[in-house]
Amino acid sequence: MARRSDHSREELYGLVLAEAQKIVESEGYKALTARRVAEAVGYSPGTLYNLFSNLDDLVVHLNARTLDLLDQSLAQVSLKGDPEADLLALAKAYLGFLDRHPRLWEQLFEYRLADDCELPVWYTDKIKGLLARVEAALAPLFRPQESQKRDVAVQVLWASLHGIGSLAIGGKLEVVTTRSVANLARSLVVNYVAGLKSTRGSS
Amino acid sequence: MARRSDHSREELYGLVLAEAQKIVESEGYKALTARRVAEAVGYSPGTLYNLFSNLDDLVVHLNARTLDLLDQSLAQVSLKGDPEADLLALAKAYLGFLDRHPRLWEQLFEYRLADDCELPVWYTDKIKGLLARVEAALAPLFRPQESQKRDVAVQVLWASLHGIGSLAIGGKLEVVTTRSVANLARSLVVNYVAGLKSTRGSS
Repeated sequence: MARRSDHSREELYGLVLAEAQKIVESEGYKALTARRVAEAVGYSPGTLYNLFSNLDDLVVHLNARTLDLLDQSLAQVSLKGDPEADLLALAKAYLGFLDRHPRLWEQLFEYRLADDCELPVWYTDKIKGLLARVEAALAPLFRPQESQKRDVAVQVLWASLHGIGSLAIGGKLEVVTTRSVANLARSLVVNYVAGLKSTRGSS
Repeated sequence: MARRSDHSREELYGLVLAEAQKIVESEGYKALTARRVAEAVGYSPGTLYNLFSNLDDLVVHLNARTLDLLDQSLAQVSLKGDPEADLLALAKAYLGFLDRHPRLWEQLFEYRLADDCELPVWYTDKIKGLLARVEAALAPLFRPQESQKRDVAVQVLWASLHGIGSLAIGGKLEVVTTRSVANLARSLVVNYVAGLKSTRGSS
């Protein structure tokens, strides 16, 4: 195997993740092995282990890139201060990302890291960053002292949209519905937001 | 290997599925192989293939049992005609099932059948039966001619609850929240139903 030494550590890091992404996007996350990635970049598997402690570690870094990509999609939405319209736009951007990168998204949620693999803080911060976009869209519906209620709403919308997307990607939604995913997302957002408005002020 | 011939075809069918369920519940769906099941029941793998055309077929039958079990849990809820209360009770029963049988539930949604494996009608009918319970709880909110809107609401609640459960089981929800899954399900149901009520009559 050719051992190329014309890449800096940073270049090799980018190269490895780009190839890993290609493998996942074309064949799904089960095709991702250290050997496959090493072959694709033309280095020995040993060189990979200078960069990543194991395959799980590589996956965490790859998933971090996926979170960045998703964040870039959501960042296209400029909030107008109307929670319903803003959340519909975010949901559309989220489902658009899922449509373009189904297998990256799948890896994000379906690949199971070893139980003792704790996610690094810089990783969970990326998730918090995504949720902060939903939080900003929901903010007009809550008083400053209602941050707990607002956080629950953020998490409900995030998890629910995940459910709609997950059943769609897994091919399990067609069993349930022939209607479009966008339609379900719309009903979720419109009614949940209307519900938040109508119960506002009640305990 | 002992070849027991003291079981009828029906008995063997029940035996095989019971052992397959045990393997999945104790070790997860990835541990499920024809060889493991054959060993557990004390028959040759060939005998299994007299009953099931392949492992996917066995999984479909096992998943059907899981759907039956879930249906039995939801059947414990007697509807009172109050959509919010009834849906909260159904959500609680659903999450209770998920809590008791996380790995069966996981197999239901995460195991991917081969692309050419079409689900039999008797299987999709079981899913329709589950959705019919949600539909019955939502029915008071819709006029008879609004069956399409009602179906969308059924699917939104089903997929959203799936999302909340799925992130919780996958250990991905703790990244997002430390709040209980029940809390999120409650917020989903209460606000979505309030939204349906508040937008009632509007187009």
